[in-house]
Amino acid sequence: MKCEVVAVGTELLLGQIVDTNSSWIGEQLALIGIDSHHQTKVGDNHDRMVAVLELALSRSDAVVVCGGLGPTQDDITREAIADVMSVELVRDEELVERIRAMFGSRGREMPQNNLHQADIPAGAMINPAMPGTAPGLICPLDGVHDGKVIYAVPGVPWEMKQMMTEGILPDLQQRAGITSVIKSRTLRTWGKSESGLAEELDDEIKRLDETGEATIAFLASGWEGLKVRITAKADTEAEVEAVLAVEEALVREIVGDIVFGVDDDTMESVLLHLLRDRGLTLGLAESLTGGLIASRLTGIPGCSDVFRGAVVPYDREFKLKLLGAPDVPAVSEEMAIAMAVGVCQTLDTDCGIAVTGVAGPEPHEGHKPGTVWAAISIQGQTEAILLNMPFDRERIRQFTCIAALNLLRTRLLAR
Amino acid sequence: MKCEVVAVGTELLLGQIVDTNSSWIGEQLALIGIDSHHQTKVGDNHDRMVAVLELALSRSDAVVVCGGLGPTQDDITREAIADVMSVELVRDEELVERIRAMFGSRGREMPQNNLHQADIPAGAMINPAMPGTAPGLICPLDGVHDGKVIYAVPGVPWEMKQMMTEGILPDLQQRAGITSVIKSRTLRTWGKSESGLAEELDDEIKRLDETGEATIAFLASGWEGLKVRITAKADTEAEVEAVLAVEEALVREIVGDIVFGVDDDTMESVLLHLLRDRGLTLGLAESLTGGLIASRLTGIPGCSDVFRGAVVPYDREFKLKLLGAPDVPAVSEEMAIAMAVGVCQTLDTDCGIAVTGVAGPEPHEGHKPGTVWAAISIQGQTEAILLNMPFDRERIRQFTCIAALNLLRTRLLAR
Repeated sequence: MKCEVVAVGTELLLGQIVDTNSSWIGEQLALIGIDSHHQTKVGDNHDRMVAVLELALSRSDAVVVCGGLGPTQDDITREAIADVMSVELVRDEELVERIRAMFGSRGREMPQNNLHQADIPAGAMINPAMPGTAPGLICPLDGVHDGKVIYAVPGVPWEMKQMMTEGILPDLQQRAGITSVIKSRTLRTWGKSESGLAEELDDEIKRLDETGEATIAFLASGWEGLKVRITAKADTEAEVEAVLAVEEALVREIVGDIVFGVDDDTMESVLLHLLRDRGLTLGLAESLTGGLIASRLTGIPGCSDVFRGAVVPYDREFKLKLLGAPDVPAVSEEMAIAMAVGVCQTLDTDCGIAVTGVAGPEPHEGHKPGTVWAAISIQGQTEAILLNMPFDRERIRQFTCIAALNLLRTRLLAR
Repeated sequence: MKCEVVAVGTELLLGQIVDTNSSWIGEQLALIGIDSHHQTKVGDNHDRMVAVLELALSRSDAVVVCGGLGPTQDDITREAIADVMSVELVRDEELVERIRAMFGSRGREMPQNNLHQADIPAGAMINPAMPGTAPGLICPLDGVHDGKVIYAVPGVPWEMKQMMTEGILPDLQQRAGITSVIKSRTLRTWGKSESGLAEELDDEIKRLDETGEATIAFLASGWEGLKVRITAKADTEAEVEAVLAVEEALVREIVGDIVFGVDDDTMESVLLHLLRDRGLTLGLAESLTGGLIASRLTGIPGCSDVFRGAVVPYDREFKLKLLGAPDVPAVSEEMAIAMAVGVCQTLDTDCGIAVTGVAGPEPHEGHKPGTVWAAISIQGQTEAILLNMPFDRERIRQFTCIAALNLLRTRLLAR
């Protein structure tokens, strides 16, 4: 079973929008075991859309078309699919009422234009998920390409994703005769390189290759950490969850406490949770990261019960004045620790994180860019680490963030 | 003249990497007036690559193939192109020496694998730009697809971009018989909606439609502002620059001081420049943005001569203590102004920016998410604005950043 993705929109070809939808769809298809060998972008042009769809159907069993389902004149995906199906567009009155009701619930009148969204190719079915006003279509091609199917989804990412998850992926699995359940779980790690991790897990990966119980894949994701994805297949949801649980435990045993979270966890969400659990508060003294750690923490709703604030002492004088730091070199262990202790006093917090160093591009105090001291204080107990990062300014700042947060995380866990 | 883009790599289909290269190439092609009607992603599979290239050549005059030029077994773009050209791969000894020298200049021995990168289809030429070890190829197809051409570039973005700019775009222009120079200039604006701006510029856009001197396009870019792109065509570089200068002046006259920068300028780079020019220093008091403004400013190298630091008082007590703010409601004009004045005193700066409000998702003090006060102080002179943003937490924080920075920018300019 092969499924292609066709993204529709002249703005994609002109580079005004990057097509992230196709990537996401490709990932989901891979996850349920459906091959996808081609992805195509085509503009809002009827003949070229029809030709691209025909070509895709000649190579694959199913096609997901993304975009062109809106209410304007540019939105011609419905017409193109009708041509491929050799049918007419027919107005679906039930759909008209659904769209009208959707506008009504927002206290608005449905514009006449939106009626076009209820004109669907004869024989097409509506995707069960319909989070916006654009209906998704499931279009069987019996008679023209027997057994094949076109799925049409809007280009709005959250609408597309819901339709894929609820309406399309299950349908594809059924068509492909995939009765098994495929699921994956992502362990998020920090502190080891991809090759180092691969080496540690080498025996386990080989064992899995033989048994076929599950697969392990790595995905380096910058300051989001290095992701280890475990994927398993089984007959039922319960069985696949059981396999994932066993495998997760095995991997954790091998790699140790570098696993900081699972799936949607982030380093900052995990740390806030840990602090909250223990009834501890946090303050930050950020020199070279200049507010980046604070901005990540405050991106999380409800952080204010744990996070009390930050001092960003970009000027040296301010480090001394607001944090009570001693008159020592800025890029030193002593300065980092003094800042971590100082911020706990200034903000009256249990824990403090401080970073100071050289973001670049120029050296500072004789230290090259990427030389960074990160320090923590937990109820007066302090520790500092020296980072040496051969990166550019942006990545030095980003990697300092996650490394500093991780230092506090591991030390809290060790207590 | 039509040119397609083919991105090569199984990791693109699996969604492990988002294909931003094709978007960038599409934008560059549009800019020099070359049509691009299709973009395709294909995996590292010989037969499918050849089929995709043949198809692209049947529809277009030129193809840019991106990726698959590395030294490993996966990198089979060279072989696929040789097949399409009906020629053999031949080792280019001059290229071997160039690659070897490149490794040598970094003090490293060339691995044997990299020899493959010097195996090029007979008849292919080397792209004049070669920033990495992967040579770019220019492959004329005379004899198989007369007059057509395949350009191969590596998937590494900065290598690809240099080869496009120096080797491919000029060649395409020449082949297309485009002797004119096309250039564009982007005015970055903040403070008006796309429809509002389009209305203001409506007469000018109509005038340009008639004269054909230039075109104007809009691109909403979130907290990077709304971009207004002016594109012009002329016989020489000097002439096109003159047209752009005239048009820029006209647009600025119509839309006023909402233009904050040009091309690569950002709101923060422009503000830092303005402060530096006037010998003024800056401090921040960020409540709901939680360090986001500071992190943007400190992302710019050399900001420390102007930016002295930030206080992120996420806890109320800290606002009062560190900023000397009075005991007034957190979401109020009085609080915002007190914070702006307070931070100037605490950090001993000429200017202060303060923001306080509700990021959501929950209301606070009876105010709904998106209710934000932003205040500035310039040598004691204060001003505050109330923002009402019907957005989610992330966008409320982002839009507050640019709005607050812009407030200081406009008031500095007005002095």
